[in-house]
Amino acid sequence: MLILYYAPHTCSLASHIALEEVCAEFELRRIDFTKREQQASDYLAVNAKARVPALVTPRGVLTETPAMLAYIAQTFPESGLAPIQDPFAFAEVQAFNSYLCSTVHVAHAHRMRGYRWADDPAAITAMQKKVPQSVGDGFELIERHMLKGPWVMGATFTMADPYLFTLAQWLEADGVNLAHLPHVTEHRERMRARPSVQKAIADELS
Amino acid sequence: MLILYYAPHTCSLASHIALEEVCAEFELRRIDFTKREQQASDYLAVNAKARVPALVTPRGVLTETPAMLAYIAQTFPESGLAPIQDPFAFAEVQAFNSYLCSTVHVAHAHRMRGYRWADDPAAITAMQKKVPQSVGDGFELIERHMLKGPWVMGATFTMADPYLFTLAQWLEADGVNLAHLPHVTEHRERMRARPSVQKAIADELS
Repeated sequence: MLILYYAPHTCSLASHIALEEVCAEFELRRIDFTKREQQASDYLAVNAKARVPALVTPRGVLTETPAMLAYIAQTFPESGLAPIQDPFAFAEVQAFNSYLCSTVHVAHAHRMRGYRWADDPAAITAMQKKVPQSVGDGFELIERHMLKGPWVMGATFTMADPYLFTLAQWLEADGVNLAHLPHVTEHRERMRARPSVQKAIADELS
Repeated sequence: MLILYYAPHTCSLASHIALEEVCAEFELRRIDFTKREQQASDYLAVNAKARVPALVTPRGVLTETPAMLAYIAQTFPESGLAPIQDPFAFAEVQAFNSYLCSTVHVAHAHRMRGYRWADDPAAITAMQKKVPQSVGDGFELIERHMLKGPWVMGATFTMADPYLFTLAQWLEADGVNLAHLPHVTEHRERMRARPSVQKAIADELS
């Protein structure tokens, strides 16, 4: 049995959707950021990083969305979430997810978590001001060069799709102009029509 | 034949060392940041992100260090650089590399590339001021919870080792107090003794 530690409106949604896609049996445990539960000793024993997501497996705890997605894909190979037997194709999906975690999500994080990178309140405000541009630049690169359509990697749905969808949920709040992102917007709508996505979001907010 | 686009003193060193470790045949092509070659149209045709590293393979171009390292490990399976057949063990190595790219490298980047996340020069200065703490926090987590020793994952050298070494090369310049990081420091010395590391660094600086 797997246990997914999550918080609503965070990147844990990507792994949550992937678990629904592969029809995994798992328990969902919510970490309440308003109560700072991510910093409580109970949770730090699960994930010393004090962040979500974390996935408890029979072998131990996994963290970091790209690694968790690859684990889910690899342990449910019949799902076809990743072309694990084709090193180049697998690396392409992984490169997409790595770009999301190291560039796009990081740009977004400067809106709410600027304190990670500066102490001065004016600097934190300056970071917030640039989020529409930095997140927008990341998504424009995806729009023009990376999103093949209808799914991220083309005809086949992969572990890159729940992750892109999760970050694309934040575009309006990040102040990004969606008019430049027709393919990203269509992809988001396509994802919202999937039962896995509807179930994961409903379960997180219930 | 593989082609690795790199720049000295960047994270491309991780993939470079991995290619040496597996005895790959590859050509090394330097991108000169002082001449802004990463933004020249020639290079943008290879990597639209205008960054290094990029790995040209017979199937196409790969970017993003964690994906490239997994590709190198998977295409040279006899090297044992990643336990690709064990989904949990593979995910543990991937989680380590994902933490490096999305948290540790990002913290470091606020010293030289703060312009990515703010326009105000005072904000960029404020970011630089926090780098010793934010990079130091990331490495202390590695020191206390993640680096098993003698190699990152324990007894076996993996694709996590060249990547940790690459980022640990920047600790002094980032202003981090090494006294808190004895295991990280020992790991760095252990890496410096490897012929692959010595050759990669010499070739990059020659």
